[in-house]
Amino acid sequence: MDNNPQQCVIALDAMGGDNAPLVTIRGAAQALEESNGRFNVLLVGRKSEIEKIIKQENLNFPLENIIHADDVIGMDDVPTTALKRKDSSLAVCVKLIKEGKAHAFASAGNTGAVMSISTLQLGRIEGINRPALGAIIPTLKNKCLVLDVGANVDLKPTNLYEFAVMGSVFMQEIFNVSSPKIGLLSIGEEDSKGNELTINANKLLRESKLNFYGNVEGRDVLKGEVDVIVCDGFVGNVVLKFAEGFLHFLLRKFKDSAEKSFLNKLRIGISKSILKDILKVFDYQEYGGVPLFGVNGISIIGHGSSSDLAIKNMIFRAYETHQHKIIERIRESIQKFHLNDNY
Amino acid sequence: MDNNPQQCVIALDAMGGDNAPLVTIRGAAQALEESNGRFNVLLVGRKSEIEKIIKQENLNFPLENIIHADDVIGMDDVPTTALKRKDSSLAVCVKLIKEGKAHAFASAGNTGAVMSISTLQLGRIEGINRPALGAIIPTLKNKCLVLDVGANVDLKPTNLYEFAVMGSVFMQEIFNVSSPKIGLLSIGEEDSKGNELTINANKLLRESKLNFYGNVEGRDVLKGEVDVIVCDGFVGNVVLKFAEGFLHFLLRKFKDSAEKSFLNKLRIGISKSILKDILKVFDYQEYGGVPLFGVNGISIIGHGSSSDLAIKNMIFRAYETHQHKIIERIRESIQKFHLNDNY
Repeated sequence: MDNNPQQCVIALDAMGGDNAPLVTIRGAAQALEESNGRFNVLLVGRKSEIEKIIKQENLNFPLENIIHADDVIGMDDVPTTALKRKDSSLAVCVKLIKEGKAHAFASAGNTGAVMSISTLQLGRIEGINRPALGAIIPTLKNKCLVLDVGANVDLKPTNLYEFAVMGSVFMQEIFNVSSPKIGLLSIGEEDSKGNELTINANKLLRESKLNFYGNVEGRDVLKGEVDVIVCDGFVGNVVLKFAEGFLHFLLRKFKDSAEKSFLNKLRIGISKSILKDILKVFDYQEYGGVPLFGVNGISIIGHGSSSDLAIKNMIFRAYETHQHKIIERIRESIQKFHLNDNY
Repeated sequence: MDNNPQQCVIALDAMGGDNAPLVTIRGAAQALEESNGRFNVLLVGRKSEIEKIIKQENLNFPLENIIHADDVIGMDDVPTTALKRKDSSLAVCVKLIKEGKAHAFASAGNTGAVMSISTLQLGRIEGINRPALGAIIPTLKNKCLVLDVGANVDLKPTNLYEFAVMGSVFMQEIFNVSSPKIGLLSIGEEDSKGNELTINANKLLRESKLNFYGNVEGRDVLKGEVDVIVCDGFVGNVVLKFAEGFLHFLLRKFKDSAEKSFLNKLRIGISKSILKDILKVFDYQEYGGVPLFGVNGISIIGHGSSSDLAIKNMIFRAYETHQHKIIERIRESIQKFHLNDNY
């Protein structure tokens, strides 16, 4: 391993994801090739298996960058038991960070396990009580960060406030938005509308120094009026997965239409490229992955069904997160925007 | 008014809805024409205004079926103040029911006001603690009833249980489903996944005599595995409105594509009919309205932007709800499925 002490090192969980390790290895090789020396990539997992694929696929990936880990946490394994398995590729990734041998790690594996291991082993950033999972979604204007989309349920208003601070930092640093507009997902636009959680979070955000836009209703999520949308992980997860299901539903309906008649088939064939273009904006592959916000170390989480392109992009996201010092920026911001003792 | 004491009488809030009273009057006339004497329709609102439109439009609607109400509750009026206005078309509709002069009423007006007035004036069905708002959604299989979609936030598990009982009765009676499958909207399919509310509601539903399918994730909502989906009104409202926003988003993207090039315009033009067909399944106009579940009287709520077709259908829904004795069936079922004292 040609280690330049200044160089950013990214550990990739080679075994994590529905199509691992084939796509993770391909993605890692592509990322390394395109890195132009800006970062190095370590592949963490079953060494012999990884070496075999590198040879079979004739990939240009240095064998000394493979870090052996005996155990693999499956996509359906329970996070609490996964925590105990010290030889898993995930556990070894986190260990590399703790030992200073990697600056960031990325995984498309079992999200619950990645969250648990990251939170427990890396700890939380001071001032953040609940780490959050983010998702980048398309809108009619710019991209928007939604958090939390599944890491936490049954939250307090201060948790949503912390999410807003973290989201603001992220959109500022990574998407170059100068003063990110924060929206609070609720029912009804008025400040007084919502449930107990959002009504109180609204007050907190109104009083804060953040650029708070106000409540955002379900129908306005894709309008792009805000840069960050904060919500309870239960609601965020339901909405995100509903969007996924909605796209499947529409594609299936188009397919059914095509099968109904030859004329329909022709019509749909003709407009297929447009349909694909439109649906592409919802393709998570393009973005790759998002950091687990609030953890005291860079832990990038990708979609289980990531392709090699998504894996490559996820590695670039890890690099950017390191370059932009997101952890430090969150630490500074949460202190700067510190809530008074009433909360 | 040619009153047959056996005949079902439906009071329509002529002033409620974005396009009232023009579309409500048209819809009422159409419904009455198609009723074949099965039901009678009363138009409640400003008499002179209604009469003028009937004449202008040359509609076949008996003038003696107009019940005057001086006041109109606007779409943006606050429900609590709306409650105090005794001369509103809404208040008069409810009064007609209380006096036995109408068997059901329907409104496309201010949903919050309809809910408040209905609940306060008609009361709740014994055993139901929180009335719920339902929505009929399309799926890859049959139609599905989602409730609650906005009447209640911060619920208890027993409330979701009551929704399940009411939804089950409705799908059985109105959609002829023999043993409606009940799904609980949550994050994760396993019974142990979700937030405090859904984890406890899951236990309750598992122990009940209802046909409980289990948890349904956001991505499975449109798959059609269940006939009824129960959820907190906050989540239900966000998802329903998100779906609405999603359709607007897609239509806008198609439009943008068409504007990009002549070829695209041609392509989209060709497949427009298919697109329209697909989006039509999401058209609430087709169904018209759903009862406010749990209120001790028939109160049908329609979409604010209802067309005359939607109004006509809403009136038919009111008729069906009366014919199928939904209130009585809910009262029987909630007693039959009575929870033991542990809850």
